Formats: sequence, C-alpha cells, structure tokens
Amino acid sequence: MDLQLKLDHLGIAVKNLDEAISVYLGLGLSCSQVETIPEQKVRTATLPLGDTNLELLEPMEDDSPVGKFLASRGGGIHHLALQVANIEEKLLELENSGLRLIDKIPRNGLGGSRVAFIHPQSTFNTLIELVQRRGQV
Amino acid sequence: MDLQLKLDHLGIAVKNLDEAISVYLGLGLSCSQVETIPEQKVRTATLPLGDTNLELLEPMEDDSPVGKFLASRGGGIHHLALQVANIEEKLLELENSGLRLIDKIPRNGLGGSRVAFIHPQSTFNTLIELVQRRGQV
Repeated sequence: MDLQLKLDHLGIAVKNLDEAISVYLGLGLSCSQVETIPEQKVRTATLPLGDTNLELLEPMEDDSPVGKFLASRGGGIHHLALQVANIEEKLLELENSGLRLIDKIPRNGLGGSRVAFIHPQSTFNTLIELVQRRGQV
Repeated sequence: MDLQLKLDHLGIAVKNLDEAISVYLGLGLSCSQVETIPEQKVRTATLPLGDTNLELLEPMEDDSPVGKFLASRGGGIHHLALQVANIEEKLLELENSGLRLIDKIPRNGLGGSRVAFIHPQSTFNTLIELVQRRGQV
C-alpha cells in the first residue's frame, strides 16, 4: 500500500454552483473557496470534509468535459482524485501495469498542483484523477 | 458547520468485485474487508483511503438499486456517505429545511451503523447517504 495515498477530493458536477453550495451548507458543510478555472472551463467551490474536500464544479461552457457530463447525466459525482507523493513515478508504474492513461504527462492543476487522469475504461467506468500537491517531492 | 461531519465512504458500483479490487490494489490501495450484505443484495469490499473508505459494491441481483445503476451506467461512483453524530436529529433538521428524504427513519447498516438516504432530487442528482456509526450518541 502507498502510505501517501489519500482522497484529495471528490468532484461533483452541478448546474448552478450557488444553489448547490446552499444545499451543502444546509447539510452541515462549509465552503472554504470559490474560484474560476478558465483552462478547465469550470467554476469550483471547495467544501472541506474531514481530511478530504468536496469540489463542486459548474461548467462555464456546454462544450467542456463537465458540461457534457451534466448534459448527459443531469449532474452528480463526476470523479474521485487520489493524492499521490510522486505523480510521474505513479503514472509510469500504472502505464507499465497496463492501465490506459488520459494524461501520460501531468498537467497543471489548482494551486500549483500537478494532475493527470486515468482512462475510466481501465477502472470500470470510474474517472480517477491523480494529484500531486505543490511542495511534494 | 457540523464539526462531526466527515466522509464516511464513497460507494462505487462494479460488475466484478475481484477484478475491481485487483485494479485498486494496483493503484496503491489496500483492501481491509470483503463481505456480503444480503439486505442490500451486494458484495462489498472496503478500501481504506486516508480518513475515509472506498466501498466497492457488486450487485448480487440485477433487480437491486446497485444492479439497476450498473445496468444503466456501466458502473462508477454510486453515492457518497456523510458520517453524522446523531442521525435522527440530522434527518429531522433536513426534513424541516425542505429536503426530500428516501428514509425518514434510519435503517440498519454495516457493523451496527444506522443509515438513511437523501433523495437525489434534493441534491442535484448526487445520492447522499447519512451514516451514524455504532457508539455515537
């Protein structure tokens, strides 16, 4: 077992970020941050929950990955993100084990993090993101 | 914010539990428990991840909630579960705030826990379970 592994966040697609935040506040969560990520065409809200976060994602365009998911599913849990210590090492290890990767080379994520997605075909239709937070390795 | 709130687990529907466990072991997780829950018609595997767990769910019958989800979606993340300190109090609070509940009265869950589902219509298509672990309140 990789002792560094933890659930970085859970990405949830929503049509209207402000309405969704309001429902989650009603459930007892708090919202620590709202920001726009133009590269991914989403507005996000971060809701801390234990040692992980819910990340609500509102697409800014219909023709974006989250926008398409929202159109076909009406919203819901979009992906889970695993925090890893060394993303290059992990990607190489997974590729060598035969897993199909969407990103063989990490992309830049939020707050200086580096991220990569595994193809859901290799994980029984669950979209999994790997995240290396800034300051690790 | 409810300070007791944490992510109890993330439920993931899979067609074949053993094959799915093998993929998650390859990702670096470990499997702490495999068990059958006849009441919910599923076989489950618990994979600890930080202070939460992934729960892989293999339906034992097509005509079960997880079986129907698997048939329509081909598997994937099915629900998220919030751990609460007092489930009756939380359900009453949520009902009073206008949320639609699937279970107004908690059902028995794994390991002596008590669980209830919120209707996804009230949470923008994300199925949320509330869990009170044995020994709380």
